[in-house]
Amino acid sequence: MAGPTTSPPSTNLILLGAGGHATVLTEILQTVGTPLLGLCAPHPPAPGLLTALPYLGDDEAVEQHALDRVRLINGLGSSAGTTARAEIFRRFHEAGYPFAEIRHPSAIISPSVRIGEGLQTLAGSLINSEARLGDNVLINSHAVVEHHCDIGNHCHVASGAVLCGDCQLGPGVHVGAGAVVKQGVRIGAGAVIAAGAVVITDVPPHTLVAGVPARIKRENLR
Amino acid sequence: MAGPTTSPPSTNLILLGAGGHATVLTEILQTVGTPLLGLCAPHPPAPGLLTALPYLGDDEAVEQHALDRVRLINGLGSSAGTTARAEIFRRFHEAGYPFAEIRHPSAIISPSVRIGEGLQTLAGSLINSEARLGDNVLINSHAVVEHHCDIGNHCHVASGAVLCGDCQLGPGVHVGAGAVVKQGVRIGAGAVIAAGAVVITDVPPHTLVAGVPARIKRENLR
Amino acid sequence: MAGPTTSPPSTNLILLGAGGHATVLTEILQTVGTPLLGLCAPHPPAPGLLTALPYLGDDEAVEQHALDRVRLINGLGSSAGTTARAEIFRRFHEAGYPFAEIRHPSAIISPSVRIGEGLQTLAGSLINSEARLGDNVLINSHAVVEHHCDIGNHCHVASGAVLCGDCQLGPGVHVGAGAVVKQGVRIGAGAVIAAGAVVITDVPPHTLVAGVPARIKRENLR
Repeated sequence: MAGPTTSPPSTNLILLGAGGHATVLTEILQTVGTPLLGLCAPHPPAPGLLTALPYLGDDEAVEQHALDRVRLINGLGSSAGTTARAEIFRRFHEAGYPFAEIRHPSAIISPSVRIGEGLQTLAGSLINSEARLGDNVLINSHAVVEHHCDIGNHCHVASGAVLCGDCQLGPGVHVGAGAVVKQGVRIGAGAVIAAGAVVITDVPPHTLVAGVPARIKRENLR
Repeated sequence: MAGPTTSPPSTNLILLGAGGHATVLTEILQTVGTPLLGLCAPHPPAPGLLTALPYLGDDEAVEQHALDRVRLINGLGSSAGTTARAEIFRRFHEAGYPFAEIRHPSAIISPSVRIGEGLQTLAGSLINSEARLGDNVLINSHAVVEHHCDIGNHCHVASGAVLCGDCQLGPGVHVGAGAVVKQGVRIGAGAVIAAGAVVITDVPPHTLVAGVPARIKRENLR
Repeated sequence: MAGPTTSPPSTNLILLGAGGHATVLTEILQTVGTPLLGLCAPHPPAPGLLTALPYLGDDEAVEQHALDRVRLINGLGSSAGTTARAEIFRRFHEAGYPFAEIRHPSAIISPSVRIGEGLQTLAGSLINSEARLGDNVLINSHAVVEHHCDIGNHCHVASGAVLCGDCQLGPGVHVGAGAVVKQGVRIGAGAVIAAGAVVITDVPPHTLVAGVPARIKRENLR
């Protein structure tokens, strides 16, 4: 339950994005007393908490900072698919920029969990024993990832969703708010679980499922 | 995460109601060490935790106390509509009585949230960045109000419900236990969202919706 | 919000089971600094956190320990019915072995709650005012048991499920992950509530219900 990892502590944090998720992350960092260098986004933020941050320019502005002097924060959320979140991570990760972990002080992450780079765990979230998480994963407010889940890169488990024990999520899966995935279910790469869906059977890759129980609504999602 | 606001601390707290919700509020106040003067309700409470409180009489008994010497606590819950909760608040609010805030020590309210009078946030609830809440709002156990939500007066977000980012609730909306409201959805005044409903489109005022996805079940609710 | 009850503190704790639930319980005990004597299960555990514990043998190995020198921990979970959890508890309870309580430090149990033997409350769970719980009850991660609920022996309320106020559960009920049970609903002995179900009417004993709203899918469950 420590604050966000900051090693080396002298690096500067740059936030990518200027929307709702970026606002939430900024407030977490303020709460734990970690300063941000500024934010990069296509346009300056709308009035609010983010306007107190220096606006550094669009994403190109990141490259004016040496790789070993900054760490990035992926401020893009996702409400229907993780493509934008994944793309911005990949672009800067391949260029060699590290991503910082953000952990709300109330998040509970069991000591036996193995995590990747840039994990974000929001208020009241839980990751239970021996779960494994890839890079660029977002476990949103009050979401539960039960014991022995295996979560691929770029997955987003939205607010209040529950993954029961032993679930497997391929890369880039979006689990909508309040959705429930039953014990041991496997979800293929790029699948989207609609908000409130209850998933009791495996989900093929790049498929949208919704409802109780969840059924396929769309296939071949890009 | 402070205890209930008590300014001026010398005022006395009077609880309105003697049912389940009143019991929960009383136990929160006991936990944080804030004494109650007593309770007002049509009938004395059934045996239990509330019988340890002085029974002051029915609601008329409030008026034996000067406006500036007491603060009230709305002890009425709601399981299908917020009318009774709203009426008792309006009656005493219009007479000039202030209502106290009740905040369970485990509730998380982001610093950038703007709240109205008499807010009640129960165990494990969360109100995220830049949300705005009106007067007499009840955010029940484990409920989540995400960033930038706009919650009207007298709304009740029941246990375990999740409002995603940017939702708008008109006054007097009841969001049932475990319901999920998708990002950006607008819910009209006096609407009732049934327990477990998943709301993905806007809801007209004074309408009952239920199911996954939520559909209109009744209109013209009083 | 204390750690697990350990009276007398000199007794040794033996874990029954070697699966996912046993792993979660073991990690909670490690977190709060309570050592385990070892585990009993039909087979030694798979590689992971549990292999650090001494493997004592199958369940018969318990009986090599005097009744007053050990306390047991029911490490069996349930994903569709509570029979196995109930049977192992009954067997050793009738032989006179006591079961220890396990309480995650983040679990919130209102002081007015009455609990039975061997209660397990996992991370982020909540049991609200004046609820009553029988023996061998498991309230899993993030589950909510609201005020005045009455929960029979051997019940399992799975991760993220919400029981509204005044619900009654007979013995051996399994409430699936993310399910919601409306205020005042009564659920008969041995019933199974499927994951994500929303229960708005009473459920007969030994019945499986599922869906929103929940409907009977199977009767005469053993």
